[in-house]
Amino acid sequence: MKSDIEIAQQAVMKPIIHIAERLGLSEDDLELYGKYKAKITASTLNKLKKNKSGKLILVTAINPTPAGEGKSTVTVGLGDALNKLQRKTVIAMREPSLGPTMGIKGGAAGGGKAQVLPMEDINLHFTGDLHAITTANNALAALVDNHIHQGNECRIDQRRIVWKRAVDLNDRALRKVVIGLGGPLQGVPREDGFDITVASEIMAVLCLAADIKDLKVRLARMVVAYNVDREPVTVGDLKVEGALTLLLKDAIKPNLVQTIEHSPAIIHGGPFANIAHGCNSVIATAAAAKLGDYVVTEAGFGADLGAEKFLNIKARNKEIDPEIVVIVATIRALKMHGGVAKKELGVENIEALRAGFANLQKHVDSIKEFGLPFVVAINKFVTDTELEISVLKELCEQAQIPVALTEVWEKGGNGGIELAQKVLAILEKKEQRFQHLYSLNTTIEEKVHAIATKIYGANRVEYSSKAKKQIADFEKYGWGHLPICMAKTQYSLSDDPSLIGRPEGFSITIREFKPSIGAGFLVALTGEVMTMPGLPKTPAALNMDVDEDGKAVGLF
Amino acid sequence: MKSDIEIAQQAVMKPIIHIAERLGLSEDDLELYGKYKAKITASTLNKLKKNKSGKLILVTAINPTPAGEGKSTVTVGLGDALNKLQRKTVIAMREPSLGPTMGIKGGAAGGGKAQVLPMEDINLHFTGDLHAITTANNALAALVDNHIHQGNECRIDQRRIVWKRAVDLNDRALRKVVIGLGGPLQGVPREDGFDITVASEIMAVLCLAADIKDLKVRLARMVVAYNVDREPVTVGDLKVEGALTLLLKDAIKPNLVQTIEHSPAIIHGGPFANIAHGCNSVIATAAAAKLGDYVVTEAGFGADLGAEKFLNIKARNKEIDPEIVVIVATIRALKMHGGVAKKELGVENIEALRAGFANLQKHVDSIKEFGLPFVVAINKFVTDTELEISVLKELCEQAQIPVALTEVWEKGGNGGIELAQKVLAILEKKEQRFQHLYSLNTTIEEKVHAIATKIYGANRVEYSSKAKKQIADFEKYGWGHLPICMAKTQYSLSDDPSLIGRPEGFSITIREFKPSIGAGFLVALTGEVMTMPGLPKTPAALNMDVDEDGKAVGLF
Repeated sequence: MKSDIEIAQQAVMKPIIHIAERLGLSEDDLELYGKYKAKITASTLNKLKKNKSGKLILVTAINPTPAGEGKSTVTVGLGDALNKLQRKTVIAMREPSLGPTMGIKGGAAGGGKAQVLPMEDINLHFTGDLHAITTANNALAALVDNHIHQGNECRIDQRRIVWKRAVDLNDRALRKVVIGLGGPLQGVPREDGFDITVASEIMAVLCLAADIKDLKVRLARMVVAYNVDREPVTVGDLKVEGALTLLLKDAIKPNLVQTIEHSPAIIHGGPFANIAHGCNSVIATAAAAKLGDYVVTEAGFGADLGAEKFLNIKARNKEIDPEIVVIVATIRALKMHGGVAKKELGVENIEALRAGFANLQKHVDSIKEFGLPFVVAINKFVTDTELEISVLKELCEQAQIPVALTEVWEKGGNGGIELAQKVLAILEKKEQRFQHLYSLNTTIEEKVHAIATKIYGANRVEYSSKAKKQIADFEKYGWGHLPICMAKTQYSLSDDPSLIGRPEGFSITIREFKPSIGAGFLVALTGEVMTMPGLPKTPAALNMDVDEDGKAVGLF
Repeated sequence: MKSDIEIAQQAVMKPIIHIAERLGLSEDDLELYGKYKAKITASTLNKLKKNKSGKLILVTAINPTPAGEGKSTVTVGLGDALNKLQRKTVIAMREPSLGPTMGIKGGAAGGGKAQVLPMEDINLHFTGDLHAITTANNALAALVDNHIHQGNECRIDQRRIVWKRAVDLNDRALRKVVIGLGGPLQGVPREDGFDITVASEIMAVLCLAADIKDLKVRLARMVVAYNVDREPVTVGDLKVEGALTLLLKDAIKPNLVQTIEHSPAIIHGGPFANIAHGCNSVIATAAAAKLGDYVVTEAGFGADLGAEKFLNIKARNKEIDPEIVVIVATIRALKMHGGVAKKELGVENIEALRAGFANLQKHVDSIKEFGLPFVVAINKFVTDTELEISVLKELCEQAQIPVALTEVWEKGGNGGIELAQKVLAILEKKEQRFQHLYSLNTTIEEKVHAIATKIYGANRVEYSSKAKKQIADFEKYGWGHLPICMAKTQYSLSDDPSLIGRPEGFSITIREFKPSIGAGFLVALTGEVMTMPGLPKTPAALNMDVDEDGKAVGLF
C-alpha cells in the first residue's frame, strides 16, 4: 500500500493560477508562493464581498478515538465529489502545526486519494503564517519584559503576567521555565512558559478577525498581564498593536491550494480546539463562500467541541452560518465507544457497534439543538465487514438519520458521490433554521450550563472557588457578554476521558477560566490542558530526509 | 527630507520575472514569492555551474563608529552604477534579522536612493529563511532535551550541552534561563539560553554550504553537547541531520530582488560578524557570479573583521575569490577615529580628519596583505565640507590609494559612477594575485597570530588557561585544520573598543574558543560577545503600524 506522501508526490498538480481562474480570479488577485500555493490579496477579498455567499457544509465527527475517524479526509473527498457533480465547491481547512509533524507520523492534510497538495509544504513551513504568529507572539513577550526592565510605566505585576512565549514545536522542556536570570542587565527574573504556536491567543485572534482593521482592534484588546491593582494590562496599553499587526499583515491573507483532484482548497489558520475554537479562519471560510456555490469546512475534535464552538463562537456572522452538518464516524471508532480494545478492532463485533452507536446518536441530537440538518458519513476502513456496515446503516435508518458510506481515502471524489448526493438533496429540501445555543446576553453560568446539559448531556455544572471568583471579576471587567470556549477532553462527552459512548448523569466541573479577550471568548477549563506537547521516544524527525534534488523523504 | 521607507514605497518595482529575464532566467527558474521576490530553484543553480564566473567586488569599511559608514548603501549604489555603465552586475547581500528591526530604527537594505526592494518585506519576514533557521535550531534543541528525557542513549552530560535555543528577536530576558522545570513529566531541568537567530550555527552552516548535500554533511557535523566522557556529541550521533535539512530545503535557495534602479540583487543569509563570518551565503555569491559579469558584495563590520573573514573563511573556494576590494569611509567616521565626539561631527575639523585617516590607512595595508587591489569610497554626507573632502582625497593620493567620492544615498547609481569607473579601470589593469593570509595546515596559534599581527597590528597574542586547554582538546578531536573566526569588538582594531584610530603595540587576548564544526571554523573570543541583543527604552515597534490597505507604516 502506498503511503500518503507517495500518493501526494505522484499526483500531478495544476498551476495554482489555473485553479484560481476556475474561481474567476486572475493572477493579479494572487500573491504566488511558488507555482502551487498562493495568497489571495486583501483588495480581492474586499472586491469579493459583494458576491452572494455559497452554502456552507460543516464536517464534524463523533468523539475521537485512537482508531481514527478521518474528518479531514472526508472533508477533502466531499469537496472533490461535489466538484465531480458539477457543483462549484471550495474546501476550507486548518493549516497544520510543525510540532506534531516532527513528533508523530501522520499528516494533517487529508489522506490517501483525498489530500490537499503540496502536502510537504503544507505540513512544513507552508506560506509562513505560523512563523509570523510565533514571531508576533514572542515580540509581544519581549516587549512586555522590556517594558518592566525599562521602568514599568504600566505598573505590571510581574507575578501576574499571563502572556507566554511560543514555539511551533513539541518541546516539553519549555513548559515551565525561569527567565531573566544573570543579573540586572539581563532583565527581571520571573517564571514563564512556552505554548505551542497554535495555542497562542494570536492564532485565535487571526482566525476570528474579519479583516486587518479588525485584527488590530482584537490584538489591542489582548490581556498580557494584570497591574499591581489587579486590573488588566492590554496590548493597547503597551501601544504595540500596530507593530503586531504589521508582523501579521501577510499571515492574515488566506492561502489557496488544490486537492489531488484539483478542487480549490483554502487552508488558513489552525487554533487549538480546546483552549481555542479549533477551526480555520473566518477570512478563509468567508472567502470560500464568496468564491464557491458550496463550501466544505471542518471543525476540530468531535461535535461536542469543534462543531459546538464553530456554531456558538465562529458563526456569529451571517456570512459563515452553516446550512448542513456532516457527522463522520468509522465502524472501528464506534466499536471502541462500544468497549472494544484497539488491538481487537479487526474482528467483527456487532454488539460493540450497537453499543458505540450511542455516541453518534448523541452528536446527532446535539446538532438538532442548533436546528441544522445533518448526514452521517460512514468513513469506510478495510477491516469493516459487510454485516457491520449494514447494521450501522440500519441503526441510522431506524433513528431517521440520513447516512452515506464514503470511500474517499481509497477512491477520492468518486468515493464520496453518495454522501455528496445526500447532502445536496437535503440542502434542496430543508429550510435553514440555524440558531445559536445561547444568547450572548445570558450570564457566564447560563452559557456554560447550556453547553454542558444540551451538548454534553451533563445534568449539572460545578465551579471551583477560583472559577467563581473569576466570574465576578470578569463581570466587573465587562467580559460577561463573551461566548464560552470549553476546554474539555476530546475523548468523552463528559470531562472524564474514560467515559466513552454516551455517558449520563454526570456533572461538569469548571476548574478555572482563561480570558481570551482579543479572540473574544472566555475559556472554561474542566481539567489540565496541555498547551505544549512533548516528543515521543522515537520522534518522526528521525525518519525525515531530503533526496539530492531537495525532495522530502520520510514525511508521513 | 524623505525617510528610507517613503523613498522605497514611492519607487515603482518591475515584476521580478522581468529582472530575472535580463539575467537569462525564465519563470521556470524561479519560485515566486509574490510579484517582486523569488527564490532561484536548485536545478537552475545546478545548470548555472557551467557558466564562467563574473568578477567579484568586495565592499568593506573602516572600523564602524556611531557616525555610520553606509557600506550596504555603497554596495547597492555601486551595483546600480555598474549597470548604468552597461556592465551586467548582480548585487549579493545579507538578509536582515527582525530583532534589530523591532528594536532600533534603521533598515538593513541600503538607504536613500540606493536601496533594495521591497524593503518592508526584506526587513520583515522576507521569504521565511530566518524562520526556517529558527525552527531548525529549536527543533534540534527539543530533540536534544527529548533524547535525554527518553533515556539518554548518547550519554549526554546535561551540564555540557552547548546547543542553545533561538528567536529572531531582541529579547534580553531569554539570555539566561532555566528550563525543564515542573517535575519528571516536563523534562530534565538545566541551564539554557537563547541566541538571536542570526547567531545560530545553522545560519553560518547555511551560508557556507555549497548545496543541499553539503548542507546535510555540515549539519551532521555540528556539536550539540559533550558526553560523560567529554567527547563531542553531534547532530549525526542523534540521527536528525535529515530532518534539519528537510526544514531548510527552501531556505537554502537564494532570493532574487531588485534595487530602486532595477539592478538584480540576491539577498540570502546573514550570520553574525563576530561569532560567525558575517557575509551572505556562498550559494548567493556563487549564483550572482554565474549570472553577472560583475558581482558587488559586502562583508560585515570593518575590514579587520568582515573582509578578513570573507577572505580567509568564505573564499576557500575559487568560484568566489574577490578581484578587488572597495573600502568605504565617511568624513564623519574618520573624524570620530581622530577623537571628535559624535555631537561635534557637524563642525569642520581637518586635524581630526588627518588623525582618523590612520584607521583607513591600516585597512588599506591589510587588504594589501591579501594581494588584492582596492579603491577607497568616500561616502558623502551633507555635513562634509569641500575642504574636508579635498584633504581626504589628498591624503589618499599622497599614500597612493585610489579614491572616489560617492553620492549614492542622494543620487542612486549616478552618484556611484566615479567609483564604478575606478573599479573597472583597476580590474582591467591589475592581475589577480589573491592569497589567503594563512594556510589551513598551520597550527591554531599560528593562524590567530597571523590575523592579530598582520590585520589588527598587534604585537603579541595571549591565551587564557582555558583557551590553552581547548587548543589541546581541539587538536585531539581533529579540528586543528579549521580556519579561525575572530570574535572581537568591531569598534577598534584592537580588542579594546576605546582604542580608536590605528592603535599600536597592543596585545590580543584569546579568552576562550567556541567550535563551530558544522560551519567549519573555530571562533576565538577576545571578550564577552553579546549573542542576544536587548530592546531599547523606546523600541522602534512603538512607531510601527499598517494602514487600512495593509501597507507598512513607521518602518524606518
